[in-house]
Amino acid sequence: MGTTLSFDHFPKGPKNQITDVPGVLVGHKTLSSGPVQTGVTAVLPHGGNLFREKVTAAVHVINGFGKSTGSIQVEELGTLETPILLTNTLSVGDVSSELVKYMLEQNPEIGVDTGTVNPVVMECNDGYLNDIRGLHVTGQDVREALAAASPSFAEGAVGAGRGMSCYQLKGGIGSASRLLEFGGRTYCLGALVLSNFGSLADLIVCGRPVGPRLAADLAMEEDLGSIISILATDVPLSERQLKRLCRRASVGIARTGGHIGNGSGEVVLGFTTAHRIRHQEERDVIDFPVLAEKNINLMFRAAAGAVEEAIISSMLHAETVTGRAGHRRLSLAGLLKEELPAWE
Amino acid sequence: MGTTLSFDHFPKGPKNQITDVPGVLVGHKTLSSGPVQTGVTAVLPHGGNLFREKVTAAVHVINGFGKSTGSIQVEELGTLETPILLTNTLSVGDVSSELVKYMLEQNPEIGVDTGTVNPVVMECNDGYLNDIRGLHVTGQDVREALAAASPSFAEGAVGAGRGMSCYQLKGGIGSASRLLEFGGRTYCLGALVLSNFGSLADLIVCGRPVGPRLAADLAMEEDLGSIISILATDVPLSERQLKRLCRRASVGIARTGGHIGNGSGEVVLGFTTAHRIRHQEERDVIDFPVLAEKNINLMFRAAAGAVEEAIISSMLHAETVTGRAGHRRLSLAGLLKEELPAWE
Amino acid sequence: MGTTLSFDHFPKGPKNQITDVPGVLVGHKTLSSGPVQTGVTAVLPHGGNLFREKVTAAVHVINGFGKSTGSIQVEELGTLETPILLTNTLSVGDVSSELVKYMLEQNPEIGVDTGTVNPVVMECNDGYLNDIRGLHVTGQDVREALAAASPSFAEGAVGAGRGMSCYQLKGGIGSASRLLEFGGRTYCLGALVLSNFGSLADLIVCGRPVGPRLAADLAMEEDLGSIISILATDVPLSERQLKRLCRRASVGIARTGGHIGNGSGEVVLGFTTAHRIRHQEERDVIDFPVLAEKNINLMFRAAAGAVEEAIISSMLHAETVTGRAGHRRLSLAGLLKEELPAWE
Amino acid sequence: MGTTLSFDHFPKGPKNQITDVPGVLVGHKTLSSGPVQTGVTAVLPHGGNLFREKVTAAVHVINGFGKSTGSIQVEELGTLETPILLTNTLSVGDVSSELVKYMLEQNPEIGVDTGTVNPVVMECNDGYLNDIRGLHVTGQDVREALAAASPSFAEGAVGAGRGMSCYQLKGGIGSASRLLEFGGRTYCLGALVLSNFGSLADLIVCGRPVGPRLAADLAMEEDLGSIISILATDVPLSERQLKRLCRRASVGIARTGGHIGNGSGEVVLGFTTAHRIRHQEERDVIDFPVLAEKNINLMFRAAAGAVEEAIISSMLHAETVTGRAGHRRLSLAGLLKEELPAWE
Repeated sequence: MGTTLSFDHFPKGPKNQITDVPGVLVGHKTLSSGPVQTGVTAVLPHGGNLFREKVTAAVHVINGFGKSTGSIQVEELGTLETPILLTNTLSVGDVSSELVKYMLEQNPEIGVDTGTVNPVVMECNDGYLNDIRGLHVTGQDVREALAAASPSFAEGAVGAGRGMSCYQLKGGIGSASRLLEFGGRTYCLGALVLSNFGSLADLIVCGRPVGPRLAADLAMEEDLGSIISILATDVPLSERQLKRLCRRASVGIARTGGHIGNGSGEVVLGFTTAHRIRHQEERDVIDFPVLAEKNINLMFRAAAGAVEEAIISSMLHAETVTGRAGHRRLSLAGLLKEELPAWE
Repeated sequence: MGTTLSFDHFPKGPKNQITDVPGVLVGHKTLSSGPVQTGVTAVLPHGGNLFREKVTAAVHVINGFGKSTGSIQVEELGTLETPILLTNTLSVGDVSSELVKYMLEQNPEIGVDTGTVNPVVMECNDGYLNDIRGLHVTGQDVREALAAASPSFAEGAVGAGRGMSCYQLKGGIGSASRLLEFGGRTYCLGALVLSNFGSLADLIVCGRPVGPRLAADLAMEEDLGSIISILATDVPLSERQLKRLCRRASVGIARTGGHIGNGSGEVVLGFTTAHRIRHQEERDVIDFPVLAEKNINLMFRAAAGAVEEAIISSMLHAETVTGRAGHRRLSLAGLLKEELPAWE
Repeated sequence: MGTTLSFDHFPKGPKNQITDVPGVLVGHKTLSSGPVQTGVTAVLPHGGNLFREKVTAAVHVINGFGKSTGSIQVEELGTLETPILLTNTLSVGDVSSELVKYMLEQNPEIGVDTGTVNPVVMECNDGYLNDIRGLHVTGQDVREALAAASPSFAEGAVGAGRGMSCYQLKGGIGSASRLLEFGGRTYCLGALVLSNFGSLADLIVCGRPVGPRLAADLAMEEDLGSIISILATDVPLSERQLKRLCRRASVGIARTGGHIGNGSGEVVLGFTTAHRIRHQEERDVIDFPVLAEKNINLMFRAAAGAVEEAIISSMLHAETVTGRAGHRRLSLAGLLKEELPAWE
Repeated sequence: MGTTLSFDHFPKGPKNQITDVPGVLVGHKTLSSGPVQTGVTAVLPHGGNLFREKVTAAVHVINGFGKSTGSIQVEELGTLETPILLTNTLSVGDVSSELVKYMLEQNPEIGVDTGTVNPVVMECNDGYLNDIRGLHVTGQDVREALAAASPSFAEGAVGAGRGMSCYQLKGGIGSASRLLEFGGRTYCLGALVLSNFGSLADLIVCGRPVGPRLAADLAMEEDLGSIISILATDVPLSERQLKRLCRRASVGIARTGGHIGNGSGEVVLGFTTAHRIRHQEERDVIDFPVLAEKNINLMFRAAAGAVEEAIISSMLHAETVTGRAGHRRLSLAGLLKEELPAWE
């Protein structure tokens, strides 16, 4: 569940998570053992065969100090055809390879009767807490994350978020959702972040600049960071509209105190479940409903708020973690425990 | 060696290959056994430690139906910090993972005292001739391609080019180089392509539309294709200038008959060896010589011609190959052998 | 009418012009008097109120050495809301201002009850033949070009093309069209170019490298050039698909011998008449049919051929023009008159 | 002068304005008469001949709902060769035309011995307060703004900012500067904004969410908005680095409460005065010092803070203005006058 704090005026979805968007599933595999603090998180737009029924998608790079894969084709074709996997930076190759194997198993036609598949793997560097050089994520871990995919998932120091640091405290996986109404129908916009960026002195929670005070009390080591944001919705949006939506993630990040640091790889991927783009399409012209542009500003506001909340939620759900070389990241919830109840 | 045909008015380098650019090295590992027709090709901007001494680089995506990795960071930071590895589409993950391991070995500071590393792996789909689903490229193959890197290398059906098809004939690795003079000094521009695109009826060789005739004689199966182009130079260019240069690869491709087909992943990566960008830079402001823009048109012409020749060279050097499911791609040299001498 | 030469295997539309796309209109105003050799060309996606009923559009910049306006908003919103005006580089401001006035007259709500309007003006530099410093294009000329818009229009040294040079010969306005069938329905793709680029020695006509011979015979002055390409269709395409289509204009340009010279501002604008995007949209979600991606390669081929033919058509329709400082550009048709009939 | 409030930890320049960057000049022409509330602001990178001695520049579009001109060429060539002019949306054409005339007068070689010139004109829609349909800005106004260019200039409801609205209050021209030290030398980064965006309820001043309270008290009409940001520095940066810098303007905007609204055209132009790029360059290779990337994060932070302060400064300097149709925008300084002193 996302936080119970208030970030904007939109109603939140029932779980206040990206899985409030119907069909979206999230699964984790967490590795936590001494210096090994890492994992995999899988985000599935739907539970069917994604290669055969792709979804409309877009990518936006806020700051390209990052190693995520798959963006070139998403940009060109406007479709996502695999689950999105999140992991640590140096494990992208292994995770990508396993994702390919998983797709090959599901689709015997790939590489025989049809072309190849575009694996989407996104990453942050968890090397402060995790022995990232050890490349500890295995193919089996990828399969377990995929198998765990469900409408209900944990946030905080789990999955790919296990070793991540945010604002020099413990970061990880966070999520939030917003409900919107268009044409008398209720839709959902969900955000999921892998948070791993920021300097403590900059931290803002719900408009409260708590960072300077905490930074004065604590002496935390700075770290190169990054943040991956996933936006999902069932509102019918074109690739262009999704790309516009993705750009608003930067607003949510800035509201928590981020300044798009040089070393912060900030990449946003958005998709809508409103269309199913068939790999084998028989029709020559397809129906492709899209939101009237007059309505899009509401979605922009919702995206900014959902990303902001997802970041804070990743921190509030994360427990203190000690990892590689005795490095330790404190839980924000622990630091704020006396004041938080008053904010809700 | 590139071809001995004439494509433009520039003098060619001594080897007529990308390795005419001083310091550039190329190595292959070729897998050729029944249905396994694939491999790895490594392009090294220099023989030193690329992570510690990066080179200035740029990427241009002509058509993003492709799965190459590393482009986001090259675009953001303007540097290349690993060898460029070429392979088949589905092996990108494994090759990328091995490249990371190779870089970790060379640089014990990665993931401990400094950030991560951005592996650049580029690909085409060799699934027509190769059992691409088998993921036959191993880490050992990557190491062998890297170890084989040298100023002298084979073209044609070798390395990553082993299983590639070009204009429905045999494609693969091709290269060419051009010499340019600026300020009384001679510089070199080199191109290397992994050619895997095109329909035979479109093929143009040195301005001669040989495709229609050949297509009428032969009944070749069409294939989804792609082309990767690498441009290297010792001319000092900025990232912006390199990106402009990369855009001209499309001219060379079009001159051979290409039309940027929907399924043709066309990605260009350019680098200059003129700068060494230190990972640990002590200076606050660095010297960064760049070519005066008035001279850049010569480079554009040279790039177009070098890419054109590299494509044709990849075909003329490739022997006929039979692979998966009895699929066979004929050698262009074989088909043209009676007329070619007269063209030179 | 376009040329009667054969460039590809697609059937041509009845006029072989961009106005074969139903609803598209083109009008010229030509200024030709001594050193004043310039003008305005208007391309209208439809004859109605474009601000209130916009069309889906995309822009692609091949080489941004140019001063066209309006591209930022077309890229963001995916719509075109004014006629496209073509003129000389230094008159863009005046033409743009007059286009704004024209739109204000048609739409009294602009700037009062609704926002502003995005004028699209594209340009090449006709300074070799035209006294471009004189800024001779007036608001009245803009109005006359708009008023002249019709399904039938002249090509060659007319309108914005009056002073343009192509391959050091006379260029200007050229057009061509292609017919395509999808789902049993016939659609049209049209191209219109403002041609003003290239070196004579590079010229290729229908695959014949006529340039070297002509360049040896003639001593023509070189010139900074550019080319604007407009692609229109009634096939339903998304903004993303239109952008992909626009990228293929570069293939057509390369086929005539172009190499994307440093000084050649090459910009492509594409639109489809298949959707009417209302400025005041009452619906919350709109129907937006798009072509299945499997069909798009046919359009790519058609676009490449139509742009190639439009360029050659611009040259074949242009008469020899003498302008500023006695500068003269010869007619290609004149130079080829003995051999052309044999090519058709 | 910028504000005396504190936005970050960087020392401010002596004037706390963009003109703290040595050589940079700013001039205004303000039109204020009944329904005519508009103007022109000129920003000059240096007082010399900008066409002959260009500066390195970059553009970043945050949200392209805007009509600024000149960006295509700045992006391609990385240079700025005219003053930057700011004005209202519908006057861009007239202002651009006059800027061309100004450049032609200074450079008799344009259009005769050399190519053309790329006028850079940026805009926001001041139609709420200004009779924007009247196109009241004349060539003479442009000349007066250029002639007024000086190291010292007014902020608030002046020049192009005269009719602009920000957070439903009075916006306009604001500026701020930051000092940075690299290699023992002090450099300056300056920002100037044309502010015209935002909803009052979102307004944040120095981290204080004053918007909700003010919005509850006042009933202000909402408006389509935009914001233009100019970043200037004497730090030697490449085009790539400048583009990265420009991206951080979005952080400054978000800190004041902006969410990149659908209708908010947000464009950023950055330049450095560290290089003079000669139109006629005799050298073949030029020296081009650039900042070591390790230092760039400091500049990112400074840019975010300077843009944030510039926005607030535009509002604090602006007096209440009544314009077209009795529309009125209140001064933020007036609304906060009792509490502001306590914040400083």
